[in-house]
Amino acid sequence: MKRIPVLLLGCGGVGQRLLDHIVSCRAIHSQQGLALSVVGVCDSRSMLLVDDLQNSEFSDVFLKEICKVKSSESSLSTVSHFGRPCQIFNNPTELAIDLSASLGGSTGLVVVDCSASSETLQILKKSVAFGCCVVMANKKPFTSNIEEYEELTLHFRRIRYESTVGAGLPVISSVTRLLASGDPITRIVGSLSGTLGYVMSEIEIGKPFSEVVLFAKSLGYTEPDPRDDLSGMDVARKALILSRLLGWKIDMDSVQVESLYPDEMGPHLMNTEDFLGSGLALLNVIISERVKAALSKGNVLRYVCMIEDSRCRVGLQELSKESALGRLRGSDNVVEIYSRCYKDSPLVIQGAGAGNDTTAAGVLADIIDFQDLFK
Amino acid sequence: MKRIPVLLLGCGGVGQRLLDHIVSCRAIHSQQGLALSVVGVCDSRSMLLVDDLQNSEFSDVFLKEICKVKSSESSLSTVSHFGRPCQIFNNPTELAIDLSASLGGSTGLVVVDCSASSETLQILKKSVAFGCCVVMANKKPFTSNIEEYEELTLHFRRIRYESTVGAGLPVISSVTRLLASGDPITRIVGSLSGTLGYVMSEIEIGKPFSEVVLFAKSLGYTEPDPRDDLSGMDVARKALILSRLLGWKIDMDSVQVESLYPDEMGPHLMNTEDFLGSGLALLNVIISERVKAALSKGNVLRYVCMIEDSRCRVGLQELSKESALGRLRGSDNVVEIYSRCYKDSPLVIQGAGAGNDTTAAGVLADIIDFQDLFK
Repeated sequence: MKRIPVLLLGCGGVGQRLLDHIVSCRAIHSQQGLALSVVGVCDSRSMLLVDDLQNSEFSDVFLKEICKVKSSESSLSTVSHFGRPCQIFNNPTELAIDLSASLGGSTGLVVVDCSASSETLQILKKSVAFGCCVVMANKKPFTSNIEEYEELTLHFRRIRYESTVGAGLPVISSVTRLLASGDPITRIVGSLSGTLGYVMSEIEIGKPFSEVVLFAKSLGYTEPDPRDDLSGMDVARKALILSRLLGWKIDMDSVQVESLYPDEMGPHLMNTEDFLGSGLALLNVIISERVKAALSKGNVLRYVCMIEDSRCRVGLQELSKESALGRLRGSDNVVEIYSRCYKDSPLVIQGAGAGNDTTAAGVLADIIDFQDLFK
Repeated sequence: MKRIPVLLLGCGGVGQRLLDHIVSCRAIHSQQGLALSVVGVCDSRSMLLVDDLQNSEFSDVFLKEICKVKSSESSLSTVSHFGRPCQIFNNPTELAIDLSASLGGSTGLVVVDCSASSETLQILKKSVAFGCCVVMANKKPFTSNIEEYEELTLHFRRIRYESTVGAGLPVISSVTRLLASGDPITRIVGSLSGTLGYVMSEIEIGKPFSEVVLFAKSLGYTEPDPRDDLSGMDVARKALILSRLLGWKIDMDSVQVESLYPDEMGPHLMNTEDFLGSGLALLNVIISERVKAALSKGNVLRYVCMIEDSRCRVGLQELSKESALGRLRGSDNVVEIYSRCYKDSPLVIQGAGAGNDTTAAGVLADIIDFQDLFK
C-alpha cells in the first residue's frame, strides 16, 4: 500500500467536504493500492497533529468529529479534548513549515490549501521548496504577485490547483494537456461565476437586476455581501490563473475588470444594508438598457472572462445566442478554449462550477494525481 | 534533462502527426526538463531502431524523413538506405517485445500504439508486464475480451488511452478524475462519431440520408466504405472503453449496437459500389420517417452512446433540442457525464473528436503525463 500523508490547511466548507470524501473513498483508493493518511488539520489558529507522523493517521471517526466541530463553528481546539492520540498546537504556520521540512524530503507530504486566506502563501512556498506536493482550492496564493507565482510553480509537477477555476470542472487539467501537446491556445472565453451566470441569464428574461440579485442571495448563490461577486474580482482571479497558465507573466493590475456597481457604491462608501436596500435598485435601468441593446442585435449579455491577444479582460460582453456561452442558463460555468486543434469550433467544458462538494472532489482528484511521486 | 524513450507502433496518419508534434514541441518540453527520444518506429512489416538504445535517438531531420516516406505510402525499409545510425529489422513484433524487456525495467520506455491493428495487443501486454508505459490511440487492443483488458490495465498508472475516445478531447482523463474523487458516475451519453454527428444534423434540415452520406464521403469524413461508420461499430468500441473505465466487466457482445443499414446490405452480401450506388438510397424513407417522428415531438434524432443502469447501448435516440447533444451541429463530439456532483446538469465536454492532428495531440499529452514515472 502506497501511503500519501496529507496536511489540510483550512477546514471550512470545502475542507470538511474533502475530509468526508477521503473517508468515503477509502475503499476505492485502497483497491488501487493507495492510503490517504491525514496527519494534520489546521484552521487559522490551531493545528491538530498525529503523534507519529511516519506511521499514524487520523481515523475516519476522528475526521468526522473534526468536521462536526468545525461545522458548528467551534475552534479546532475543542476537538483536542477527546483524548485521541494527537496533539494541538497554537502556531499552525510555523508547524506546517516544520512538517513540510521533515516529511518533504523523505516520505513525502501533500499540503492541501482549502482556506480562503492569503496567509498560506508562505507555507506553500516553503512546502514546495522542501519537496512536498501542494494542492490549492484557495485562489489567493496563486494570484499574488508574479514573483511569488513563479517561486510556487518552479516545481510545477508538484503543484495542482484544478479547483481554483470552475471548482471540479477539468479546466486547468485540460489546458495543461493542450499545452503539453504543443497545441497553441489562442483564446479562452469563459463564464466562470455561477452567481453572475445566474444573474445574467435571469435578467435576460426581463427580471429587474436588483430583484434577481436579492433572490440569488436568498438562495445562497451570492456571498453575504453580493458586491463580492458583482465586483468581478473573483472572476478576475480565475482569469489571472488561466492567463498565467498560458505563460503570461502578468499581475492582477494587468487584468481589466468591470465592476457591476460604481465606485460610489463600494464597500468603503456604502454599507451592505444600504447597498441591498437602495443602491442595488439604482442599477436596474442602466443594466436593463445594456441587456436590451444586446437583444436588439440578436445577442445576449454575459459576464465573461476573455483571454486573447495578450489581453485579459473580465466584464460584460455581448455574445451570439448560439455560442456555448450565449446558450448558458442557470449557474453552470462554461469555458471555451480555442487552439490550433480547436480552431473553428472550440473545446467546450461546461458544468457546475461552484459548491463545496464539487470543489472538494476536484481537490481530491488532484491529490490522487500525485500518486506516482510517492514511493 | 529527463529522457523519455519512445517506441512508435504504426506510422500512418496519426503516427506521422505524432512525430511532427514531437519535433515541433521539442523546445517546450526541453524547458520543462523533458527530452522525448524516439528510439524506434515500426509499421506492420519493419522496425527502424537506433543503434544505441541508452544514448541515441532519431534526429528531427530523420523523423521528418520517416514521415515523408510513409506519407508517400512507401515501406519503412526504404528509409534505411539513408546511412543514418539505425538498423532495419523485419520482425517488428518480436523486436518490440525484446526492446520492452530490455528498457522496461531500467531506463523505461513508452510504447505508443498509433496503428489500427489488433496484432499489437501481445506487444502491449508484454510491455506493461515488463514495466514499460503504454499509450494507445488504437482502440482494438482495448476492445478485445475482458481478460485481455484486465491484463493490460493491471498496472493502470502505466496505461493511457485518451485518444481512443473523442480524439484529443479530455474525456478519459475527466472520467478518471471523477472516479478518483469518489464521485459516482450514473450516466454517460455521448455523440462520439463526428461522421454520424454530421450526418444526423444534416438530415434533420431535410436533406436525404443518401445524399448526406455521399457528400460526407466526398469531404473525407467517412471511411472509404461508409458502412464502417454506419454500422456503429466504431462508436460501440468507444462505448465499451468508457463502460470498462467505469469498472464494468463486459465484452463487446454486451454492447447493444444499432446499425444504420440492414443485414442484407452488409459488406458480406453487397459490395461497396452497389451499396453506394443503390443500397444507400433505399434507406432514405425509413430514416427520414424517424427524423420526422422525433421532430413532431419537438425532439431531434442523434446517433449516441448511452451508458447507464448497467446497460451500454449505441444507436439512434430521440433527444431534447435543448440538451447539449440535441444542439450539436456538424462533426463535433460531445459527451455528457452525470454523477453526484453533476446531477441536475451534466459535465459536458465538446469539441472536434476526430482528425489526425488532435488525435496525435492527445497521444502526446498522454506521453508527457508519464513524466513522473521516469528518472
